[in-house]
Amino acid sequence: MRTSQYILATLKETPSDAEIISHQLMLRAGMIRKLASGLYTWLPSGLKVLRKVENIVREEMNKAGAIEMLMPIIQPADLWQESGRWEQFGPELLRINDRHNRPFALGPTHEEVITEFVRKEISSYKQLPINLYQIQTKVRDEVRPRFGVMRAREFTMKDAYSFHLSEECLDETYRKMHQAYCNVFERLGLDYRPVIADTGSIGGSVSHEFHVLAESGEDAIAFSSESDYAANIEKAEAVAPSIERPAPSKELNRFDTPNAKTIEELKEQHGVKPHRGVKTLIAYGAPNENEERGLVALVVRGDHELNELKAEKLVLVDSPLEFATEEDIVKATGAKPGSLGPVGLTMPIIVDRSAAVMADFVAGANEDGVHYSGINFDRDVTNYVVEDIRNVVEGDASPCGKGVLNIKRGIEVGHIFQLGTKYSEAMKAGVLAESGKNQIMTMGCYGIGVSRIVAAAIEQNHDKYGIKWPTALAPFELAIVPMNMHKSHRIPEIAEKLYADLQAAGVDVLFDDRKERPGVMFNDMELVGVPHTLVIGERNLDNNQVEYKNRITGEKEVIDLDKAIEVLLNHVKG
Amino acid sequence: MRTSQYILATLKETPSDAEIISHQLMLRAGMIRKLASGLYTWLPSGLKVLRKVENIVREEMNKAGAIEMLMPIIQPADLWQESGRWEQFGPELLRINDRHNRPFALGPTHEEVITEFVRKEISSYKQLPINLYQIQTKVRDEVRPRFGVMRAREFTMKDAYSFHLSEECLDETYRKMHQAYCNVFERLGLDYRPVIADTGSIGGSVSHEFHVLAESGEDAIAFSSESDYAANIEKAEAVAPSIERPAPSKELNRFDTPNAKTIEELKEQHGVKPHRGVKTLIAYGAPNENEERGLVALVVRGDHELNELKAEKLVLVDSPLEFATEEDIVKATGAKPGSLGPVGLTMPIIVDRSAAVMADFVAGANEDGVHYSGINFDRDVTNYVVEDIRNVVEGDASPCGKGVLNIKRGIEVGHIFQLGTKYSEAMKAGVLAESGKNQIMTMGCYGIGVSRIVAAAIEQNHDKYGIKWPTALAPFELAIVPMNMHKSHRIPEIAEKLYADLQAAGVDVLFDDRKERPGVMFNDMELVGVPHTLVIGERNLDNNQVEYKNRITGEKEVIDLDKAIEVLLNHVKG
Repeated sequence: MRTSQYILATLKETPSDAEIISHQLMLRAGMIRKLASGLYTWLPSGLKVLRKVENIVREEMNKAGAIEMLMPIIQPADLWQESGRWEQFGPELLRINDRHNRPFALGPTHEEVITEFVRKEISSYKQLPINLYQIQTKVRDEVRPRFGVMRAREFTMKDAYSFHLSEECLDETYRKMHQAYCNVFERLGLDYRPVIADTGSIGGSVSHEFHVLAESGEDAIAFSSESDYAANIEKAEAVAPSIERPAPSKELNRFDTPNAKTIEELKEQHGVKPHRGVKTLIAYGAPNENEERGLVALVVRGDHELNELKAEKLVLVDSPLEFATEEDIVKATGAKPGSLGPVGLTMPIIVDRSAAVMADFVAGANEDGVHYSGINFDRDVTNYVVEDIRNVVEGDASPCGKGVLNIKRGIEVGHIFQLGTKYSEAMKAGVLAESGKNQIMTMGCYGIGVSRIVAAAIEQNHDKYGIKWPTALAPFELAIVPMNMHKSHRIPEIAEKLYADLQAAGVDVLFDDRKERPGVMFNDMELVGVPHTLVIGERNLDNNQVEYKNRITGEKEVIDLDKAIEVLLNHVKG
Repeated sequence: MRTSQYILATLKETPSDAEIISHQLMLRAGMIRKLASGLYTWLPSGLKVLRKVENIVREEMNKAGAIEMLMPIIQPADLWQESGRWEQFGPELLRINDRHNRPFALGPTHEEVITEFVRKEISSYKQLPINLYQIQTKVRDEVRPRFGVMRAREFTMKDAYSFHLSEECLDETYRKMHQAYCNVFERLGLDYRPVIADTGSIGGSVSHEFHVLAESGEDAIAFSSESDYAANIEKAEAVAPSIERPAPSKELNRFDTPNAKTIEELKEQHGVKPHRGVKTLIAYGAPNENEERGLVALVVRGDHELNELKAEKLVLVDSPLEFATEEDIVKATGAKPGSLGPVGLTMPIIVDRSAAVMADFVAGANEDGVHYSGINFDRDVTNYVVEDIRNVVEGDASPCGKGVLNIKRGIEVGHIFQLGTKYSEAMKAGVLAESGKNQIMTMGCYGIGVSRIVAAAIEQNHDKYGIKWPTALAPFELAIVPMNMHKSHRIPEIAEKLYADLQAAGVDVLFDDRKERPGVMFNDMELVGVPHTLVIGERNLDNNQVEYKNRITGEKEVIDLDKAIEVLLNHVKG
C-alpha cells in the first residue's frame, strides 16, 4: 500500500479527550475516529489489526472444535422476558421498538438467542456436546463510554456457547476453551494471565478471566510467585496466617484520641502502627424472617482493606453490602465512625483471619474520641466469628499453597464461564437423553473482547514514539521510507523496485511515497508501529546500500542492495 | 468436518412460510433459521457461503484500489438531519433513542457517516481521489420482510463511497467499480447482467444495477439480442417505430359497447384486436402557479402497458403519478373509465410513440357504453404530443440501435451510482483545490447485497433435489458418504483414511459419519449442494473401488481405491 493512496490519518497532537495511552495512540496512529460517544469508525490500519485478532480467535476456536455461526444483532424482547433478563438487565441493554412498535434489544450477548436456537434444533443427546460461536458487533449502552474502544457502545466480541448433558462433559469443553484462549493470547504475542474469577462452593473453579497485563489495567490480579495460580484481587483468598495468636501481655487501656478518627491519624498522633490496630466497619446484616435488618461489625487489620464481595457472601451480611448510616451506628454503639471497635459491641462481629491472630491491639472504644489499646480476643471480645473478609496484599501466602502473592494490574479481555442450567432451565431447553427422558442441558459460555484486545495490546506494547506491535498484530509488516524521494532520480527507482519485489515475496508493505520530510515519515511509521523499516537514502546508495531498522529492538543494519530482499525477508518472516 | 459434530440441520419438509425457492432451500439445507420477522441466524453452512461471497467481494474491491474500513451501525440523528434524510427516509430507517434519550438510527446505508468522516479527514486535493468501503451488517425496517435473506431487516452489505474533484475522475473510478463488480460476479460463477438503471439527460449512464438472472427475479430486464445493452424494463426506452403512420382509410364510426370496458372485452365481444385499439388513462397534470392540478390523458396501444416512471417524468404530468378519481374523470369527459378515448378530449393528450403511428384505430367515445372505430390522429385528434410512455416488450427494437429486445427476469444484487454533490453539498464536504480555493467534492457510491447474493445464487442454481452451488460458493467441496458404515469394519477404516488424506490435500470435506440410511445421506448432501461426492460401499470395495458423483453434471465414476485421492483432487481442484 502506498501512503499517497491510503488514509494514514496520523495526528501530531494528542486529542484532549483521550485519557489512556491506547486511546491516544489509536487516534494518533489513525486507527480509529470517534463518530459519537462510544461509537468509533475503524480506519484502514485499525481494521487490519482488528481482523488479525479476529482471525487468530477464529482459527483457535475452530481448532478446538467450536463451530461458527452468526446470529442477528436485533433480538426479540420476548426471549429476554423468558430468561428474566429483560427486567434484570439495566439500561446498558439498548431497547428499541420496530415500526410496528414491537420491542427488541440490540444484543450485548446472545445467551437467549442461542438457547432458543438450540432448543429448536437439538433434540437428542446424540447431537451433544456442541459448541457454537460467532464473531460479531455487539451493543452495550454504557452510561459513560470512555477509553476509546476499551469501553465503547459498539464493539466486536467473540461469544461461544456450549451445550452438554453432564457437568463432566461441560468440564471437558471448558478445559478446551481455556486452552484455546491461552493459544489465542500466545499467538497474539501478549503477556496475559488466566485468572480465577470465582470459586464455586463445591470447590473447583467455574469461571476464569483472561487478563492482558498492563500498568493501566483496571483490575488488580494476585499471582503466586511459585505456581500458575492467579486470581482477581477481589476474588483471591487471603489464607489464614499460619502463626498462632500470641497470649495477651497487656491490660485493656483506655486513652483519649480527640483528633484521631483514622488509622493514619492514630499513627501520627499516638504512634500506633497500622498493623497493630484494627478497623471496625458497620454494615447491615442479612434480613430476618420479618425482613428486618440488624447491624453487623466487620473487623480488619488497620493496614488491610475490607473486601466487600467476600463480606456480602457471608450469611450474616446483607447482599449487596450496604454500610450503616451514621445515625444507625450512633444508635447501636453510642459512637460515631472513627471511634468504633469490637469491645462491648452487642451486634454480631466478623473478624478477618489476619485480625483474629492479633494480640494487644488498638481499636476504638465506641465512645467518641476514645480508643483502647491492649485489646485481646476471647478476653475482651468474646462474641465473634472469623472469616476471610479482606483483600489480599503483596507478600500474602498464595492460596495454592506455593509461594507468596504478587500483585499486577490487568485488562480483562476474555471470560469463560460454566453457566450450568441458568438459561436452559428458564427457557426449558432440553433434549431426549439416552434414558428416553427429557433432560435440561448444561451450558458454558466463552467470551473474548476482540476490539478490546487491540487496545489492551497497545497498553502493553508502546513507547513514547508510538505503538510497538507484536508481529501477529501489526497493520503492516514493513515500511519503506525513501528519503527526499522527489529530489532524486535513483531513489524512487530503487524504492519502487524493492516495493514490487517485497510485495511479490508476500510481505505486507507500507510504501511511504508522500512528499514529506524524512523526520515526518519516520515519526509516522514509529507511531503506526510498523515493526520493520527499510530506509533508502542518497548516502547509503552511494555505497549501493540501504538501511534496516527494527521498531521493537531499535536495531539498525546497513545492507547491500543486492542482498536487501533476502535480509529483509529474514527479518520479517524469520 | 464430521456431520456428527456439526449442525447439519437439514429439513425434509418445506417450511410453509417460505414462498420462494431460495428461502425454502436455505431453510431446508440448514443454512438459515428465522429468529423473528426479517431476522435470520446464519447456521454454519450458510455462514461459510456468506463468507465466501464476502471474501471475493473484498478481494476485488482491494484489487480495484478501494480501501476497507468499518463504520458504526449506530449513527447519530444529527448527520441525517444535516443531509435532509432524517425527514425524507420513511419508517425503513429504524430510529432509536439511547439511555440519555439522544436520537440515533441503525444504518441502512452510510452516505452521511462517510461524508462526515471525509470532510474531517481529507483536506487537500492531494488526498483525492479516494474510494472507501466496508462489509457490514445493515438494518432496514422493511414493512413486510419476506423471501428469507432476500428481503431481511438485518443483512450484509458491501458499501463503498468514492470522493473526487471532478466528474472525469468520478467517471474513472465508476468504470473501475463497474469492472470490479463484473469480476465479482464472474468469480462467483453467476449468470448476471449489468443493467442501465437510469440515463442522465446529458447522455451517458450515471447508474447501473447488477442483476443475477433467475426466473423468480422481481425485476424484468430488457436485453439487446445483438449488443451489451441491458436496462431495467421500467427504464428501457421504447424507441419510436421506424414505420410511417398510414393514411386514414376509414371514417370515424360510433358503435355501442354496453358490456365492453376493457381491451379484452372489446376483443371478445366486438372482435377488436388489442393492437388495433388504444387505452386512455387519465392522471393529474403538473400543478400550475396556483398549485391547481388539471387532468392529462395518457394514450397507449391496447396491447402495451403504461410505464408510470416514464410518464411522471414528463413536465405535463404530476410526480409521483396519480390516476384521476372516477368523479374527476366523469366531470371532465362525461364518461366513466372503460369508455374513454382521445376524440374530443379538452385536456392535454400524451400519446405513446407506438400509438402515434396507428391509423383507423378503436377507442372509447367518452360516452358510457360507446366506442369509436376508424379513429385517425390529426383528423379526429388534433391537440396531442407524442412521448415514450410505455414499457418495452419482447421484440421491440433495442435503443442501442442493434438487434431487438429480449426480456428476462433478474434479482438486483448490486448498484453503482454517480451521486455527484448531493451529500457533499448538503454537508459542506469540501477540500482545498489546486487553485487554493475550497471545492465541494463529487461522490460515487457502490453497493453489493452480500447476503442477497447467496439467495440469488440459489434462485439461479437449483433443481428438485436441492442447491447446485457454483464451485466458488459451495459450503464444502466434497462429501464422503460411507454406506452403512456402522455395519462394516472396512468401510469406516477406509472412510477415515480417505477423509484424513483429502483434508491433508487441502480439500474442504464434509464426512457424513451419522448412523443414517444411505438414502438419507445422499438426499442431505444433494440438498446442501456439495458439488462432489465420494461414495464408499461394500460392493465397490469388493473390487477395491469407490464411487465418485458430481452434483452439477450428474456424472458418476467408479475409481480404483489406490487412485482415489488423485482422481478426486482432479475433480475438486481441476
